[in-house]
Amino acid sequence: MFFENFDNVRLERQLSGNRFTASYRLFGDEKTARSVAADICAEQTVEFPVSLLPSGTIPEKIVGQIETFEREDENVYLAEISFAEELAAGEWTQFLNVLFGNISMKPRLQLIAARPSQGILDVLPGPQFGIAGIREIVGVPERPPLFTALKPMGLSADNLADLARQFAEGGVDIIKDDHGLSDQPFSPFEERVARCADAVQNVNAKTGRQAIYVPNVTAPIEKFFDRAIRAKELGAGAVMVSPGLIGLDAMRRLAEMKIGLPILAHPAWIGGFALNLPGNCPQGTSCGVLYGTLMRMVGADATIFPNYGGRFPLSREDCMGIVTASREKLGEMRPMFPSPAGGMELKNIRDMIRNYGADMLVLVGSGLFRCGDNLADNCKRFLEEVS
Amino acid sequence: MFFENFDNVRLERQLSGNRFTASYRLFGDEKTARSVAADICAEQTVEFPVSLLPSGTIPEKIVGQIETFEREDENVYLAEISFAEELAAGEWTQFLNVLFGNISMKPRLQLIAARPSQGILDVLPGPQFGIAGIREIVGVPERPPLFTALKPMGLSADNLADLARQFAEGGVDIIKDDHGLSDQPFSPFEERVARCADAVQNVNAKTGRQAIYVPNVTAPIEKFFDRAIRAKELGAGAVMVSPGLIGLDAMRRLAEMKIGLPILAHPAWIGGFALNLPGNCPQGTSCGVLYGTLMRMVGADATIFPNYGGRFPLSREDCMGIVTASREKLGEMRPMFPSPAGGMELKNIRDMIRNYGADMLVLVGSGLFRCGDNLADNCKRFLEEVS
Repeated sequence: MFFENFDNVRLERQLSGNRFTASYRLFGDEKTARSVAADICAEQTVEFPVSLLPSGTIPEKIVGQIETFEREDENVYLAEISFAEELAAGEWTQFLNVLFGNISMKPRLQLIAARPSQGILDVLPGPQFGIAGIREIVGVPERPPLFTALKPMGLSADNLADLARQFAEGGVDIIKDDHGLSDQPFSPFEERVARCADAVQNVNAKTGRQAIYVPNVTAPIEKFFDRAIRAKELGAGAVMVSPGLIGLDAMRRLAEMKIGLPILAHPAWIGGFALNLPGNCPQGTSCGVLYGTLMRMVGADATIFPNYGGRFPLSREDCMGIVTASREKLGEMRPMFPSPAGGMELKNIRDMIRNYGADMLVLVGSGLFRCGDNLADNCKRFLEEVS
Repeated sequence: MFFENFDNVRLERQLSGNRFTASYRLFGDEKTARSVAADICAEQTVEFPVSLLPSGTIPEKIVGQIETFEREDENVYLAEISFAEELAAGEWTQFLNVLFGNISMKPRLQLIAARPSQGILDVLPGPQFGIAGIREIVGVPERPPLFTALKPMGLSADNLADLARQFAEGGVDIIKDDHGLSDQPFSPFEERVARCADAVQNVNAKTGRQAIYVPNVTAPIEKFFDRAIRAKELGAGAVMVSPGLIGLDAMRRLAEMKIGLPILAHPAWIGGFALNLPGNCPQGTSCGVLYGTLMRMVGADATIFPNYGGRFPLSREDCMGIVTASREKLGEMRPMFPSPAGGMELKNIRDMIRNYGADMLVLVGSGLFRCGDNLADNCKRFLEEVS
């Protein structure tokens, strides 16, 4: 009655029939879970009472469709829901909106998988380097590349460059800024990147190794792309981005620009979207979707995540989900390095290798300072642990 | 021992002494809460064992400082922590990182307030129009402006323009796109914005009112700013942005560009950061910080939030927190319209006015269709409810 001039035939012609799907974990008894699944179908699309929609194509093809619904456990159900590809409008932002826009604010559900159609895969950059690309850059074909961070905040650019030199001499392959280093007066971006990149390259010239320095380029959007490009000019070997701070979409754009450097994704802020706290009914997304699938879609070549057993509360299962999503088939996208981190010590490394295999970046930050007074010795032990 | 060339005097000279603060709610017994507070001070700054820091300025001034610690309730404590202004580097992204970057991934804490120093306020746009500016644009000096949404997805640009016309004729002041409308084939951005803006302006020419059409301009970053500018050219009266999808920082930048249109913020995706689900230990941020303080800092002139009593799980207290944060003193920033939404019906309006006063945008979307068969009559009743 409200939509007299609506034309089913016209809309029908505009739909390709291609659909993408998302899976949700639903909490509650079966009746509740089925009702939540039906709610997702409408909330993420028409946001309108289905009974008031014009009959035909909108309820049949624009509203999401429950493809499968099954019991996972007591009071836990899984639903796979499909959506017309056209709803995403060929845009990452709108794709994310359909996957988990409004329902991010609803209880008793969790996004656990996203399966883009080919039309959506076509507009996402995915990793431009991936595991093989980063291995080639650092010249480490098989073992896990060694990864550490320059800190603490408050050191000068020269202090940080001196640390970078020591790490490179010690055999660390990838030396990144701590994610809190941006453009503070004590180590301004330009000066820091120049000094640290030089320090690492000078060591490489002596050792013949191919260690890289990775500055944090997260910055206000009007400076973000320029900083990444400048990092390349100054001799950085990759860039680090915190997409929670700058937007997953900005990272996607950076990947799409193909500036010639891999992107390492840091979870500051965004990690709060995938926290399964003990005793809490899960909310947000699974760790696998957030740190794995979404980061990879928008172009991360490596995803840094807080490993279990460190100072963050992820479970072993959460982390295995991230590693799987980083490397499993996802259209033609390259596999991405998972990078377990967050309070890792040398003694955790064997366990990580057992769990995740060699295709990971082992990030040990302050753990490299905690295990002895001599950084060179500590780096040597770091290398021994992965060899 | 690790930082031989570190220069305390140099660092000391680079610090102004200005500090900003953030407040956190901490869950657990007092000992646990004190330990979490101390952890925040290090995790958000040096991310390094405090015992291994070079003595002097870094532990004394770079590490966060607990300013107050008090008991709020049984096993609930409040800590206000201060940070050197320089840590934020004059950047929104890094300010957000210090407030709640890594600790977004930690349990038993919640960000409940952010109090920027003047140096940080200076780099944030805040609302460019705010409550008074929007009231002037729509010509509604006192009562709550009426606000609705064009939906469902699947309608053509002409269908949506026809709805916009009916709403404008019915006396609705602000008519926005549903947040899922971007650039789909069934109602492409350019065509939709042109038709809907024209429809509303044509009605205004007859009625003498100043209703506005507000397109959703959320889009991939390379199109986002252009869409907002184009919206202005096509006659839109404001723009809607979902900062969860595009990034809070992109919205900040848009506000800073002063394109001459107010920005209405929609919580798609980001709202999941402030969910206090019954039975769950709170995580993320309080609703007041997310929907209120942060949105306002980055330039929202109105913040749409899922009101209690609708189809989202926020409590009355959560919502009161949003309204307070939207309008309380925040440097020299203009107050922002809170806009309760999310399944509101006409019958909810009196309660909203009692709770929030007249300085809000009352968003009734599908509720305007549910309350009777005739849109004109429904709009008339909508106006009666706020008058």
